[in-house]
Amino acid sequence: MIGRLHHIGIAVPDIAAASALYRTRLGADIGEPKDLPEHGVTVAFIEAGSASLELLSPLGPDSTLHRFLERHPQGGQHHLCFEVPDIEAAMARLKADGATVLGDGAPRLGAHGLPVIFMHPKDFAGTLVELQQASLEPQS
Amino acid sequence: MIGRLHHIGIAVPDIAAASALYRTRLGADIGEPKDLPEHGVTVAFIEAGSASLELLSPLGPDSTLHRFLERHPQGGQHHLCFEVPDIEAAMARLKADGATVLGDGAPRLGAHGLPVIFMHPKDFAGTLVELQQASLEPQS
Repeated sequence: MIGRLHHIGIAVPDIAAASALYRTRLGADIGEPKDLPEHGVTVAFIEAGSASLELLSPLGPDSTLHRFLERHPQGGQHHLCFEVPDIEAAMARLKADGATVLGDGAPRLGAHGLPVIFMHPKDFAGTLVELQQASLEPQS
Repeated sequence: MIGRLHHIGIAVPDIAAASALYRTRLGADIGEPKDLPEHGVTVAFIEAGSASLELLSPLGPDSTLHRFLERHPQGGQHHLCFEVPDIEAAMARLKADGATVLGDGAPRLGAHGLPVIFMHPKDFAGTLVELQQASLEPQS
């Protein structure tokens, strides 16, 4: 496998209300919400074994999450994030196989301060896949 | 947390095509597809660290996956499964909090031969949540 599953992103219209549901109903230990203006989202993480859940709500009028929430007004599973040792190498391999990197194609720092990219859902049977380099410097 | 994240279910229209994508593009180690007639699905598992991905495609004309795939023709993330030590105790706690168990409300044996239930997505901010008892006999 390209790397371990790092987290599952779940889009929600109201991060405080969703956090309360996960806390009350699943006994989840949820971190404080954190704004990521560069990504247009507010996020809160839930530890769930070795992987975590990332609740996401839109931040600002240009957030790409608005369109997702128009289609899924209650919220819904939004993306899967896998760790990779070297994000440029992973991108090169995927692009050589015809997959599409979203945005301007350059890695950006994600919620964990590590380089991330998103691949187009059409390349993964409808699932939006995020790749996150496991550390700031690539590992071979 | 109620239990560790066990797997993420991903609905796909064609399990062989999706398996090939995950194998080629993510280097995934995918098990053989397995029919689960009682659940109306064919499943194939991908190990991804401590959690796994479950590709699901419809089996038979009455499969509940057909409706999901009408809304998401390419496929998409379908459910999250958490392990619980005692499924009856977990159900009782969730029902007391107003959450809804789908189907006839009784646990059925799932893909791993263990008792499972599904909770209504409206109870978890739009996410379909499966609970799976970690072993055949409940643990306290």
